[in-house]
Amino acid sequence: MVRIELSIELRYDVAPPGADFVFNIHGAHTRCQIVQSEELTLSQQVLPQIYTDPATHNRYLRLSAQPGPLTVGYHAVVQLHHHLARPQDVHEVPVARLPPEALSYIYPSRYCQSDVLARLVMGEFALLPQGYSRVLAIQDWVRRNVRFESNTSDTSTSALDTIQSGRGVCRDFAHLMIALCRALSIPARFATGIDYGADPVLGPTDFHAYVEVYLSGGWYIFDPSGTAIPMGFVRFGTGRDAADVSFATIFGPVQSQAPRIAVHALADPLLRWEVPYRREEAISTDV
Amino acid sequence: MVRIELSIELRYDVAPPGADFVFNIHGAHTRCQIVQSEELTLSQQVLPQIYTDPATHNRYLRLSAQPGPLTVGYHAVVQLHHHLARPQDVHEVPVARLPPEALSYIYPSRYCQSDVLARLVMGEFALLPQGYSRVLAIQDWVRRNVRFESNTSDTSTSALDTIQSGRGVCRDFAHLMIALCRALSIPARFATGIDYGADPVLGPTDFHAYVEVYLSGGWYIFDPSGTAIPMGFVRFGTGRDAADVSFATIFGPVQSQAPRIAVHALADPLLRWEVPYRREEAISTDV
Amino acid sequence: MVRIELSIELRYDVAPPGADFVFNIHGAHTRCQIVQSEELTLSQQVLPQIYTDPATHNRYLRLSAQPGPLTVGYHAVVQLHHHLARPQDVHEVPVARLPPEALSYIYPSRYCQSDVLARLVMGEFALLPQGYSRVLAIQDWVRRNVRFESNTSDTSTSALDTIQSGRGVCRDFAHLMIALCRALSIPARFATGIDYGADPVLGPTDFHAYVEVYLSGGWYIFDPSGTAIPMGFVRFGTGRDAADVSFATIFGPVQSQAPRIAVHALADPLLRWEVPYRREEAISTDV
Amino acid sequence: MVRIELSIELRYDVAPPGADFVFNIHGAHTRCQIVQSEELTLSQQVLPQIYTDPATHNRYLRLSAQPGPLTVGYHAVVQLHHHLARPQDVHEVPVARLPPEALSYIYPSRYCQSDVLARLVMGEFALLPQGYSRVLAIQDWVRRNVRFESNTSDTSTSALDTIQSGRGVCRDFAHLMIALCRALSIPARFATGIDYGADPVLGPTDFHAYVEVYLSGGWYIFDPSGTAIPMGFVRFGTGRDAADVSFATIFGPVQSQAPRIAVHALADPLLRWEVPYRREEAISTDV
Repeated sequence: MVRIELSIELRYDVAPPGADFVFNIHGAHTRCQIVQSEELTLSQQVLPQIYTDPATHNRYLRLSAQPGPLTVGYHAVVQLHHHLARPQDVHEVPVARLPPEALSYIYPSRYCQSDVLARLVMGEFALLPQGYSRVLAIQDWVRRNVRFESNTSDTSTSALDTIQSGRGVCRDFAHLMIALCRALSIPARFATGIDYGADPVLGPTDFHAYVEVYLSGGWYIFDPSGTAIPMGFVRFGTGRDAADVSFATIFGPVQSQAPRIAVHALADPLLRWEVPYRREEAISTDV
Repeated sequence: MVRIELSIELRYDVAPPGADFVFNIHGAHTRCQIVQSEELTLSQQVLPQIYTDPATHNRYLRLSAQPGPLTVGYHAVVQLHHHLARPQDVHEVPVARLPPEALSYIYPSRYCQSDVLARLVMGEFALLPQGYSRVLAIQDWVRRNVRFESNTSDTSTSALDTIQSGRGVCRDFAHLMIALCRALSIPARFATGIDYGADPVLGPTDFHAYVEVYLSGGWYIFDPSGTAIPMGFVRFGTGRDAADVSFATIFGPVQSQAPRIAVHALADPLLRWEVPYRREEAISTDV
Repeated sequence: MVRIELSIELRYDVAPPGADFVFNIHGAHTRCQIVQSEELTLSQQVLPQIYTDPATHNRYLRLSAQPGPLTVGYHAVVQLHHHLARPQDVHEVPVARLPPEALSYIYPSRYCQSDVLARLVMGEFALLPQGYSRVLAIQDWVRRNVRFESNTSDTSTSALDTIQSGRGVCRDFAHLMIALCRALSIPARFATGIDYGADPVLGPTDFHAYVEVYLSGGWYIFDPSGTAIPMGFVRFGTGRDAADVSFATIFGPVQSQAPRIAVHALADPLLRWEVPYRREEAISTDV
Repeated sequence: MVRIELSIELRYDVAPPGADFVFNIHGAHTRCQIVQSEELTLSQQVLPQIYTDPATHNRYLRLSAQPGPLTVGYHAVVQLHHHLARPQDVHEVPVARLPPEALSYIYPSRYCQSDVLARLVMGEFALLPQGYSRVLAIQDWVRRNVRFESNTSDTSTSALDTIQSGRGVCRDFAHLMIALCRALSIPARFATGIDYGADPVLGPTDFHAYVEVYLSGGWYIFDPSGTAIPMGFVRFGTGRDAADVSFATIFGPVQSQAPRIAVHALADPLLRWEVPYRREEAISTDV
């Protein structure tokens, strides 16, 4: 079990006539992820709406800001109860036995055009033994073929673009891995959070994107960019790709400043709260 | 707009072999009720499950406690954005135009046996003009015919029992008002929270039960026991009656101590956060 | 696998100024119950609304009828795929491991006042070995203590009334069995359909009420009145008790005539469609 | 009011080892679209699963077929109750007031890359008066800039491809119109059905794709390819684009034959069932 404390501060300058925002920065409420405490602070006196998507459990915060500075703060302590499995016990699920709600994650989406990757996956992965190890092989392929490089992609960059350019950030690694899984009819979805344990060479703590793959009745976590420690991921949102789960979607004339983000583990050996570390087991928080 | 800070401490002694608990003490997330900050504390190292009912938005906390003392603490700051209307503008909705999700609140339930009150409501209320004023007339009738008296009812007391005995507590007032509304095909549901502004004569701050009635496209708040100030109610749960939304349902050998509850308004004239007061308008937080 | 063809004709005389109806006579769509074909006919030119409850999958038909005669016809062919288990393999689920959506079926409801049956079940059933056999023991107890007798109960008759009177119809047997199960914290719900295989001594084919109990991860079928063959039950609705799933709820001045109902199995040995028969196995259609 | 009778026959040759299918050819159940009768026939003895997506109400049919021929037949009579409005009364809804469930339809998707069309829509549509007329202007722009031509696109063709090629079929017209609406933050979704009233020059009756745009609290129908009569559209599915609502998604070695489709209106002047015609009013079936 892991306890993570996180705080986020987002700062904007809103120009007239004001702007609408949709944020997805609240910790999701799931069976394995308990939000022990949380606080939302807004520098403007506006009434936010918070709603939870019934299908994904993503929590969205929507508000209409006045012209002027806007600061959105979110602070939370979240408990994570990981489901661990031995990789050899984690299997692919045939299409005929997928639950209906997993089916939509085998279809192509804006940034994960799996429909045009059929030939590539046939050559690379079709003959591998099915199971967790095949998904690991896909992740390895992405790591071998894409180089992590900041500021090499933008909000229009898709999996196809990343294959061509051979570089990208965590979001691009995730999109490509998802597209490859789906091309094999393995449900895969985009997940967002904070890059707990971020590689210090790659920069300070930041928002993070990773992958969840449906195997053996649960959604297993993969971190294709390899820059962080999955056991410390607090899930904000899941969706088909980044179009579904932007941290912030902005409608109106707004200038954004760099977010301030902090995350750390509240370990306590007596209470058996662990510090996250890289594990060999398959990890899920949604079984 | 109102900001309410509340804290709850529930204390139990759990005997062997342990016990299961289901609590409904989290502030509901609705469009008009924003949980600005909240913190849950447990004295035992157990993993709680928190789940939100997709239909009611009630948030339930479930846990399995070990033998020994158990303290459950919940502290929150909640923002309330009230929808106000002039009573003469608030109408009853004909059955044919009720939304499907309101329909189940015209049927009888465990403690609100509306099916046997047809004759009573025909004589008392059927000829009154329809609308908010008729629902007020029902509330007045309950207040005239029931005397508030502590320790006069228990968990098996229903609306029929209360009509006979002529006394009860907030829960009994609520059940009877709901049963009378439903006997007229007016959807009414049971709501729980804390008795903000509690009448000091009737005792210290405590859990509270009140009524929401579906009128003019929203759920309007009524406080039939008249012991508190509706504008300060933070909603925990809504349901057909107390069977749906107990604060605590316990499975196993447990001794309960009196809960410690505190509630107050965080007013701020500059920021337009008001202190709740008794208003003339019809009030809704779920439109 | 079983195929059932059913037809229902409901006839009413609606007096001025007209009336509203809510019906629950459509076959539910579940994983195990496939509506192969269906047809709804109405003698009045009115636009019905059909909506499916997202939690129960009950399908409701709502319409506003004009004064005059109204005939509602429903004809369907439904496929049933039964999940069968050996009774000794079917277990009770501890409260701590019940899925959230099953929890509400251990609480008392209008006609199933389980909260006042604690002493009775402690004496009769608490010491029996847990599992399917204990639920059978409850069913046997109901059969021993209640005599099937037509026209001995009405819409206000509850489980407590039935214990006292010792007689009732299928609805009363179901309510009592449900109340007893819930008093032991075993989730039980009310189910409606048609009494396939009805005992000819007890009268012609009619609507039927039976029980589903949550065991071993599914809802298992029990027919406490023992008057029909569970393998032939097409499910219309499930709910906490009859208040949730009336075949017809009527608002307005209406005279009802006796319904005309027909049901039979479309067996076909070549295609392996069976004729329903009384089986030893535990049967579920919702696992 | 309109009654439509439709029948669909899909024929496949399944090669070993068999194949899985997901179909979306059932009429959706909505408040305005009533499935009066329907029948599903399968030439193979396989148990289909039918499930309804709780968010979209799309009904999916899933089955695992054996090697050999497979015929899937669907026949239904569907009633349509159109909501009509004068175009000048139909308004755009500001982002801040969109209901949560409409929000996801302003984000880009696989075939509707609205994120890269910002410049185009700024030049063409940003200065037009907001409302139904602006959406009509978008539809006109698509008709002027795309030529209907069979067999000019495939399952990978997106809105960007269609802008470049200047030709396509109904699906491509729909994707492009949706992408343009979303680039203006107007929610738009992809809808499927049958091309009632199909232009005989363009070929026999076939599956059809069209557009629903969220305006004034409802989803209004647009037929950008202009080849059919919207008043006769029976809705099968809605989704973000064709990736969500394929008529048939096939997993395995299968050869498809041309579908056989028939559709006609069951008009009856006495009963006020009309023959669909092209209307001036704005039309919605989901308000």
